[in-house]
Amino acid sequence: MSWLPSLITNTPEDGYELAIKLSRMAVKKTQPDDAVRERLRPDYANNADSLTRASQVVATNFQTVVQANDCWRVRD
Amino acid sequence: MSWLPSLITNTPEDGYELAIKLSRMAVKKTQPDDAVRERLRPDYANNADSLTRASQVVATNFQTVVQANDCWRVRD
Amino acid sequence: MSWLPSLITNTPEDGYELAIKLSRMAVKKTQPDDAVRERLRPDYANNADSLTRASQVVATNFQTVVQANDCWRVRD
Amino acid sequence: MSWLPSLITNTPEDGYELAIKLSRMAVKKTQPDDAVRERLRPDYANNADSLTRASQVVATNFQTVVQANDCWRVRD
Amino acid sequence: MSWLPSLITNTPEDGYELAIKLSRMAVKKTQPDDAVRERLRPDYANNADSLTRASQVVATNFQTVVQANDCWRVRD
Amino acid sequence: MSWLPSLITNTPEDGYELAIKLSRMAVKKTQPDDAVRERLRPDYANNADSLTRASQVVATNFQTVVQANDCWRVRD
Repeated sequence: MSWLPSLITNTPEDGYELAIKLSRMAVKKTQPDDAVRERLRPDYANNADSLTRASQVVATNFQTVVQANDCWRVRD
Repeated sequence: MSWLPSLITNTPEDGYELAIKLSRMAVKKTQPDDAVRERLRPDYANNADSLTRASQVVATNFQTVVQANDCWRVRD
Repeated sequence: MSWLPSLITNTPEDGYELAIKLSRMAVKKTQPDDAVRERLRPDYANNADSLTRASQVVATNFQTVVQANDCWRVRD
Repeated sequence: MSWLPSLITNTPEDGYELAIKLSRMAVKKTQPDDAVRERLRPDYANNADSLTRASQVVATNFQTVVQANDCWRVRD
Repeated sequence: MSWLPSLITNTPEDGYELAIKLSRMAVKKTQPDDAVRERLRPDYANNADSLTRASQVVATNFQTVVQANDCWRVRD
Repeated sequence: MSWLPSLITNTPEDGYELAIKLSRMAVKKTQPDDAVRERLRPDYANNADSLTRASQVVATNFQTVVQANDCWRVRD
């Protein structure tokens, strides 16, 4: 099964989780070695600027997901 | 209850606050340890470039919130 | 009164000023201490890359303001 | 044949792969020497911030691909 | 007279020039001292990454200008 | 003749080339001296993060070009 069967989610919160997933997947595609990614984790999880950069990527992907879901307007 | 029940806010100012919330949540999801985030706070709160980077994330999320609220047009 | 009663401005120039205000507000929300922000000012006001980063934030917020004002089309 | 015959893809996952391709192509156009790019690979594949930056580029290109595919709405 | 009377330009090239103007104005608003900005110029004009960052700001502002001009569609 | 007579291109690949041209032109406008730009070239062409930053600018400009061409939809 696809890791990304659809951009549609039921709720904004689920959409935000999808944005996080999209952000991590690009990292995984660039560095497929799980052990290396795990080793790098403290480098950014304990660095303020790295966390802000990660938040920037999520913000960009969240824009995409929100648009795909038409802002969940009909569900509000 | 969801931390993000909706992207709709009553006012632009509330929308801006939501953008800040969205920006911080990605940090929290990447570094869930409250104590670590608290310890990192001085690193960026006292660094001009870090504050600018944080402002960039808020700007991106604010774009999303503004679009979801259709620029609060009907309320103006 | 709200610091952001509306995203609507009379002119593009006013819209640009609003974009600057939005950019600074995120910094203020992250570092509310006026004295600290004042102390940090020379760090970025005298650094070329810092100024470029600040300009990037303004550009992003200006996109938002322009969209909210429908590019001031009817007023042109 | 063109390396980019179309922005249309069958699925979101294929669209994500296209976003990665678009991200890498700009690098290739700037540094066409395969050997140099190969030599640089460990520099970013083992650096947390570099991976986040790469993810940011993919996020931006994915926005473009999603829009071109109208969010795959009719196919959902 | 306003430095930004309108976002409308006659041609794409004029629009690009306006994007550059918008990018520089944010720097000027942050660092109004002409002499300081002049002194900083070599710092970024001779640094590859600084030039790329400057190009990023122009790209963002150009998006805005292009949208305001509806891509100059009726004029093509 | 203008270096940017139109944002319209025949194909997505041509649009991508235009995005690269737009990205480079901002650098050229900031640093007009060909010799300096040539001297700076190894600085970014041999640096992984610099190449990623360059790719980010292209991605942003490509968004603009894709939108101007309405995603080449009628031509697909």
